[in-house]
Parts: sequence; C-alpha cells; structure tokens
Amino acid sequence: MLIGKVVGTVVATRKDPKMEGLKFLLLRQVDVNGQEKEGYVVAVDAVGAGVGEYVLYATGSSARQTVLTDKRPCDAVIMAIIDEWEVNGEVKYRKGAE
Amino acid sequence: MLIGKVVGTVVATRKDPKMEGLKFLLLRQVDVNGQEKEGYVVAVDAVGAGVGEYVLYATGSSARQTVLTDKRPCDAVIMAIIDEWEVNGEVKYRKGAE
Amino acid sequence: MLIGKVVGTVVATRKDPKMEGLKFLLLRQVDVNGQEKEGYVVAVDAVGAGVGEYVLYATGSSARQTVLTDKRPCDAVIMAIIDEWEVNGEVKYRKGAE
Amino acid sequence: MLIGKVVGTVVATRKDPKMEGLKFLLLRQVDVNGQEKEGYVVAVDAVGAGVGEYVLYATGSSARQTVLTDKRPCDAVIMAIIDEWEVNGEVKYRKGAE
Amino acid sequence: MLIGKVVGTVVATRKDPKMEGLKFLLLRQVDVNGQEKEGYVVAVDAVGAGVGEYVLYATGSSARQTVLTDKRPCDAVIMAIIDEWEVNGEVKYRKGAE
Repeated sequence: MLIGKVVGTVVATRKDPKMEGLKFLLLRQVDVNGQEKEGYVVAVDAVGAGVGEYVLYATGSSARQTVLTDKRPCDAVIMAIIDEWEVNGEVKYRKGAE
Repeated sequence: MLIGKVVGTVVATRKDPKMEGLKFLLLRQVDVNGQEKEGYVVAVDAVGAGVGEYVLYATGSSARQTVLTDKRPCDAVIMAIIDEWEVNGEVKYRKGAE
Repeated sequence: MLIGKVVGTVVATRKDPKMEGLKFLLLRQVDVNGQEKEGYVVAVDAVGAGVGEYVLYATGSSARQTVLTDKRPCDAVIMAIIDEWEVNGEVKYRKGAE
Repeated sequence: MLIGKVVGTVVATRKDPKMEGLKFLLLRQVDVNGQEKEGYVVAVDAVGAGVGEYVLYATGSSARQTVLTDKRPCDAVIMAIIDEWEVNGEVKYRKGAE
Repeated sequence: MLIGKVVGTVVATRKDPKMEGLKFLLLRQVDVNGQEKEGYVVAVDAVGAGVGEYVLYATGSSARQTVLTDKRPCDAVIMAIIDEWEVNGEVKYRKGAE
C-alpha cells in the first residue's frame, strides 16, 4: 500500500455499469515525511474518506477485494484512513495535529 | 485509475482472436492540472469515448472486469468519461468548458 | 497495452516446462511518435510477429489470456500487429510506409 | 520480491473490515548494497518483523497468498526476514553484524 | 519478462511457511546490450540458475504459474536461463562466450 492525501474528486456520469454508485477520489502521493509528490491516483473510496485526510490505498487486483469493489474494473481503492505514522520513532503525521 | 486524454486510435488487423471487435484508443497521461505528460497507454474503449475527451482508465487484471474485456488479453480499459475533476476546491477540468 | 517494436529474439533451452514451444521476442518500447526508447520487454509471440514490426503487447495476468499463454509463467504477450496509429489526426505510423 | 528495511509503523483505526487485525509496517526500499532509497511501501507483516530489520516483501496479488492476507485488499506483504544477502561473493548484509 | 543477471543469493530463515524450500536469487536488471543497471529484483529460482547466468524472469501473478511457486507469496520467478539473445541481427549475448 502507499500513503495518499485526498485532494479532490472526479465526477464521471458516463461509465461502465459496474462502476455505478462508486465515489472517485483524487489522491496525491506523499513521501514518508508527508510531503506531496508529483504522482497521483484516482481511487474508489471504500471507507468514507474526505478531502485533506491521509489514507492508505491498494492497487491492482487487491483493489477489488473490498465488498464495494468486488469484480469491478477498479484498480485502486482507499482501504484505510490513517491516524498516525512514524519513522524511526518520530511521528511524521498525526491526524488532527497538522 | 489514472486520467488520460484520448488523442488517437490504433488499428491492428492481425491480432489474437480474443481481441476481435475491440476498439483501441491511444491515451496521453495527464497530470492533476490536465497537462499532457510524456507517458501514454493504448486502452480498449468500454464506454464510447472520443478523441479529445478526458477519461479514467484501469490497468492490469482490473481492465478485464468489464463485460467487453472479460477474459481477453487486455491490460488497460477506459471505464469512465470524466465530466469534471477538482483539486483543493478548484475545478481543474470541466467537460465542454475547455 | 503499449506499443513495441520487435528488434530481436531470445533463445533459452533450459526453462520451466510450461514455457516449452513458446517464442520469445525482444521489444523496444516506443513513444507515441514511434521513436524507440530505452526500455524493453521480452514477450511471448501469440500472433506471428517478425523483427521490424510494431506491435501491441499486454503485461501482467492479461498476458496469460491467449490460448497460447494460458496458465504459463509469462507476463508479457504480443497480442496484435499494428497496421497504423494516429495522434491528433496525424498518422504516426503506417505499416509498409516506413 | 524486493528488499526493504522496516523503519516505522502506520496506525489506521478506520479501515475496510477485511483489514482488521493486520499490522502495517513502513518499509524503506534499499539498493543491493543495503543503502536506503527514496521509495517506500506500507506492507502487512506476516512474519513478525520489527523496526530495523531487513525483509523481503511481495507485491500485487502475490501479497494475498499468505494465510493472513488471503482475500484482503492488501497489495504488499512482508513474507521473510532476511538473515543475509551477498552480491558477487561479497556479503552485503548479515543480521546482527550491522 | 525481463532479462536479469544472477549476482547473488538471499538467505531468510524466518519466513512465511509457504516459502519454505524455495531458493532466492538476487538479479541485476540488464539493458538490451547486457549492461547491468541500477535496478534489481529477488526472484525464486525455478530452473536451477547459478551466479553469473543471464535469465528471464516473470513478475506478478505470472510468477506463481510454475509448479514450484503455485499459490505462494512470490512475485518474481526465474523461468528460463538464456542461451543467447540478439538485437537487430547482432548477437548481444551468447552463453559461454563472455
């Protein structure tokens, strides 16, 4: 999994029928210090994440292992909202402490 | 999923029988601001996309989860046409407003 | 899928039994203008491609969806020989016109 | 598989139900000499690894082949703790000898 | 598949039970001219490869399609030992001729 920051939303009315009812969020990839990087990904939200939150997302076939995304043409899913992460004993991010 | 801009088509007469009847579109990868990048991908069109449109595409085994691409040697599929996306509250793309 | 140019062959006598009888071709990745790039891939040929031809190849589990590659430890397959592709209305490659 | 060094942990209370009970570790990618690189990955720990250890991790659908991660939206798993590796006859890392 | 040069071994005593009995080899990625690149991968050996040999390796779910790696958390497998490869009619590598 990688860490992403939810920075936006994508709206698509015309889509494959299997994608109906799913919410697409735009994630910025972040490094281990929480700094935003150039890369991004559009992921289906399986946990009710909101803009500004840091999340874990899974890609590939693993992105179809939630009840919401099962058998759908979805290759990225947000499967957790991060409370905190630390590197070498130092807290790099704590929710609500930004 | 990633955002792509449909910029062209690929024609291939001689192909694996399982690929018969599928339409190949050439997509430019775009960044979150909608700027075209160097990368590209050739994707099967599952939603009737046209040149100039911004789309979402899925890759890997997820690209075989549409009715059209099921069990085919296809690793990229356009599964949605984008109406709009926004980043940090700012609309970066709105269909018809370019 | 990505576009590759067939530039060579790879011979391997000692291999997993499931790979017996398959032909390995060496592909150069090309950009949307048909220029060769640094990257390459070794792909199983499912369509009878020859050196000099431009092809589409699929990777990952999708590379096992041809009759030839089914259930084999193969992660890249040539599944189409390209006749022509165009970008923004301009033909970038037409077979036989090089 | 790639070599990673366990450098931290990620805590996420709100997550997909299938991820309950799994431990997320933050891994720095390392090169063949054991030097830390920019890249990182968040992996589920299937072997009881601790901060400071060098591990092997598998990604993609292979990350779901442990008993712990079966059918879960997990795309990276630590499946081995490294004792030693060597390159061209030279030991690059030996556990306990750092 | 990609071409790798076997440059070393990785030893791991503590690992997922499904990985017992498998041999991990360290591969350097090589370019089409056989020059070693920065990248590497740790692959399970399914063909009895040795240090110094050039091999083909498959990644992702395809790495689980050998008898040896079936259903294991393994995402890279050596499935062939290369005898020779050529690019544009020029032999770039021939086993025993280095």
